[in-house]
Amino acid sequence: MTILAVGSIAFDTIKTPYGEANDLLGGSLTYFALSASFFTDVNLVAVVGEDFGDAQMQTFKGRRIDLQGLERADGKTFRWGGEYSQNLNSRETLFTELNVFDGFRPKLPDAYKKADIVFLGNMHPSLQESVLEQVEEKRLVGMDSMNLWIDITPTELRSVLKRVDVVKIDDSEARDLAGVYNLRKAAAAVQGLGPKMLIATRGSHGAMLFNAKDMFSAPAYPLEDEQDPTGAGDSFAGGFFGYLAQSSTIDAATLRRAMIFGSVMGSFCVEDFGTRRLERLTFDEILARYRSLKELTQFEDA
Amino acid sequence: MTILAVGSIAFDTIKTPYGEANDLLGGSLTYFALSASFFTDVNLVAVVGEDFGDAQMQTFKGRRIDLQGLERADGKTFRWGGEYSQNLNSRETLFTELNVFDGFRPKLPDAYKKADIVFLGNMHPSLQESVLEQVEEKRLVGMDSMNLWIDITPTELRSVLKRVDVVKIDDSEARDLAGVYNLRKAAAAVQGLGPKMLIATRGSHGAMLFNAKDMFSAPAYPLEDEQDPTGAGDSFAGGFFGYLAQSSTIDAATLRRAMIFGSVMGSFCVEDFGTRRLERLTFDEILARYRSLKELTQFEDA
Repeated sequence: MTILAVGSIAFDTIKTPYGEANDLLGGSLTYFALSASFFTDVNLVAVVGEDFGDAQMQTFKGRRIDLQGLERADGKTFRWGGEYSQNLNSRETLFTELNVFDGFRPKLPDAYKKADIVFLGNMHPSLQESVLEQVEEKRLVGMDSMNLWIDITPTELRSVLKRVDVVKIDDSEARDLAGVYNLRKAAAAVQGLGPKMLIATRGSHGAMLFNAKDMFSAPAYPLEDEQDPTGAGDSFAGGFFGYLAQSSTIDAATLRRAMIFGSVMGSFCVEDFGTRRLERLTFDEILARYRSLKELTQFEDA
Repeated sequence: MTILAVGSIAFDTIKTPYGEANDLLGGSLTYFALSASFFTDVNLVAVVGEDFGDAQMQTFKGRRIDLQGLERADGKTFRWGGEYSQNLNSRETLFTELNVFDGFRPKLPDAYKKADIVFLGNMHPSLQESVLEQVEEKRLVGMDSMNLWIDITPTELRSVLKRVDVVKIDDSEARDLAGVYNLRKAAAAVQGLGPKMLIATRGSHGAMLFNAKDMFSAPAYPLEDEQDPTGAGDSFAGGFFGYLAQSSTIDAATLRRAMIFGSVMGSFCVEDFGTRRLERLTFDEILARYRSLKELTQFEDA
């Protein structure tokens, strides 16, 4: 089972109350792919610049990540800088240099056109839709987005939403997209735009899955030592879709387990700067935290 | 089994994005007592003024609430006014008139001096401690507090914390009390001050129980129609301690069920202004929502 994942690879400069780091390998697709590759094969479509070297390639090597779709363009790789508030729940963007990502037109290698799951990372909705045009066979389509696209490309966003099964955004984005504050009403409105499912992530408060009429609340693992939340949502998505990709059936129970694996992967991501924690993570640690989340939430009937 | 509960009764004026209401029966003890009385007998110690009439008394009548400890003083009842933000997670106090509550010195009727559970509502920690001085027998002591006392009476607060088993405050108050942002570290610091257990409520994000080394995350029920969050935390406490009071044993599993009953009662409170929803609530509705919270959070082993 394979995921086709399209999105951004970047160099990140990050400041949090717990430290700072420059030129970390980042970008939503990097986190997604590293996370999903613990569960399934990932075919990666992205663009990097001339400054993307062996050190960065090493991060992907030796994992279930195929790099045939990694395009190398003239110029510099996408760069982003951000600084987090004390509670890590909000951040300020210090700079965004799109560089080669500005001209990115995703082009799928032939081998990528049949995928089990397609994941459209956060980018211009027209680019997301152009990926779907190239896909010949798929079982499920997931997508991410952000306030920028909700605000400036509402028509294009609605067009791609009609063609996806799962949209993963944070709860405030879901509210903005729906134009209604109540999260249940917002979920119903988003589902009315096309996706059968909405995953509304809530940072350190966990995430909600709205699947047709079914609701599931996944807890966040209460970390004792947060370092950097960058990429946590993308790591969540990697765990969620990665687990689904390797599942023979996708029913309500599978989706709930996938949400927990999502929460597990998001929580590990926050434990160190950039991708460092994901890089040294083991599958045994993933399973142990899954069990911890079960222990954290179980209670008996009244 | 009986709870002795001491705290404030007030008239509230409330504005939310969904409406407004004047001179509602409120105060933390009112919500606590109404909520707890679905589970157990509540002996209530509070003060009201001359403006507290039959209409208000009717709210308590016909319930498992004993009013022998309700003192009537010369003057007006405590009045509070507040206005909530769009997301209901923050509010601005419009006015506070302590009135008769300013001179409140809790005095327990003899019949109240043996209690199963003692709940010290949010008030000056010296008043809380004066209640404990009067209690002759108890199984468990719970308390609430707020930023005001954390800031202006830290010594008195620490004195009472040494004598209680459970402190229920919101997560930001727990962080302030501990002087550390991370919630797990804050919980350990609060436990180091005396209480074996910390309940950190998180508004629409649920609540956490830190019980010795055990952690439990209780979800919030995702409401489709919030109206007014006033009293939700007090209703949570009423459900939690009310359920414990009627339990023959208080072990880890009992405490988790109590957290869920707390979340259930808090969620109902928000469905209408003031105490209106609690007043028309049935125990069957409570049990149905308990089951809904179980359905909302259950997932299988990996």
